[in-house]
Amino acid sequence: MGMEDRLAELGLALPAAAAPVASYVPIVEAGGMLFVSGQISFAADGSLIKGRLGADMSVADGQKAAERCALMVLAQVKAALGDLDRVVRVVKLGVFVQCADDFTEQPEVANGASDLMVAVFGDAGKHARAAVGVPALPRGVAVEVDAILEVR
Amino acid sequence: MGMEDRLAELGLALPAAAAPVASYVPIVEAGGMLFVSGQISFAADGSLIKGRLGADMSVADGQKAAERCALMVLAQVKAALGDLDRVVRVVKLGVFVQCADDFTEQPEVANGASDLMVAVFGDAGKHARAAVGVPALPRGVAVEVDAILEVR
Amino acid sequence: MGMEDRLAELGLALPAAAAPVASYVPIVEAGGMLFVSGQISFAADGSLIKGRLGADMSVADGQKAAERCALMVLAQVKAALGDLDRVVRVVKLGVFVQCADDFTEQPEVANGASDLMVAVFGDAGKHARAAVGVPALPRGVAVEVDAILEVR
Repeated sequence: MGMEDRLAELGLALPAAAAPVASYVPIVEAGGMLFVSGQISFAADGSLIKGRLGADMSVADGQKAAERCALMVLAQVKAALGDLDRVVRVVKLGVFVQCADDFTEQPEVANGASDLMVAVFGDAGKHARAAVGVPALPRGVAVEVDAILEVR
Repeated sequence: MGMEDRLAELGLALPAAAAPVASYVPIVEAGGMLFVSGQISFAADGSLIKGRLGADMSVADGQKAAERCALMVLAQVKAALGDLDRVVRVVKLGVFVQCADDFTEQPEVANGASDLMVAVFGDAGKHARAAVGVPALPRGVAVEVDAILEVR
Repeated sequence: MGMEDRLAELGLALPAAAAPVASYVPIVEAGGMLFVSGQISFAADGSLIKGRLGADMSVADGQKAAERCALMVLAQVKAALGDLDRVVRVVKLGVFVQCADDFTEQPEVANGASDLMVAVFGDAGKHARAAVGVPALPRGVAVEVDAILEVR
């Protein structure tokens, strides 16, 4: 089954790949890897998911924001490669969570992104990860996720 | 001399490799590299090393926390590979320091991790590094370190 | 035209490569990539560019700080390799912006670094990027940039 069929089975659709907010590109392929730019949290309707964990946003909403970032990572991969079928492995996710100073559940929030990768790719979706809190993200979004994927 | 003998000579022992707090894996090997997930600061007794540099924790204690993160990186490598002997080079460390807004000694804190790598691996332990301050880390720990290592 | 000629044409000169503030190295080459340590913002006169975006520094000044970080990345590459001509592609920039909690223009600041890479390398300078806010950077600088470059 193709990866997009798997997404459909999960009730998820790839969003339109967001254009960079700046003078860079969404993806660079080098050395057998795709380096994916930090993707910020967009809702399915194209609006930004803004908020600060530990202040005005629940962990569940943060997880959803992280999942949306991961979906956008996949949308960028599809836009760059045509489909997701060259992906061999999700290698690394960097998850940045906009949060209050006393918020400590970055891993739970980041699971929204990690779980999606495993749901879509199975064992090949299991990745290394760093999740940290930050005080401020572009446009005030709640979560930003960058990624490295191995491709054939 | 094996790397673990070298650790013993330094008076250090590898901790038990911590299980991920989430749906990811500690290490992915791809393209001749190990991508190691962010490791948070655990003391030798298995308790978390919590604290905020520039507020309630000294630079010396922060260095120790960073060293413990680096030890956990090595423990994860050993758990994944069986030993440390396939490591060719420590390529990159990312060091995230939970700190006050006016704290500026992230490099000194990060040296706790960097010095350990050089003590264990010699020239092969010399790595590229980024050290930054963050407002909040998982579980309230003082330091988180992720890594890329080259393996044969 | 060589890359340094291109820099000269842009009215820019490579700074003296800064020594690491710690026990690491500016660059590691592995797997066909250069991993460049986080470079902090130095002015052309060698002084640090300190400040906090959204508080005491304008976006334009932040962009200049980011550009200086990118120049220092190139200075480190030159110091390590002798020249810039082995660079095949700028693969990834990580841009850390010291800012207030309500600052949301990290992409605009980061463009100072990104635009320089494109000005110097053309299409080969187009890179993946993650730009995030942080509360504190080494020595109180405004911007830190790390990088991955592909080399032949």
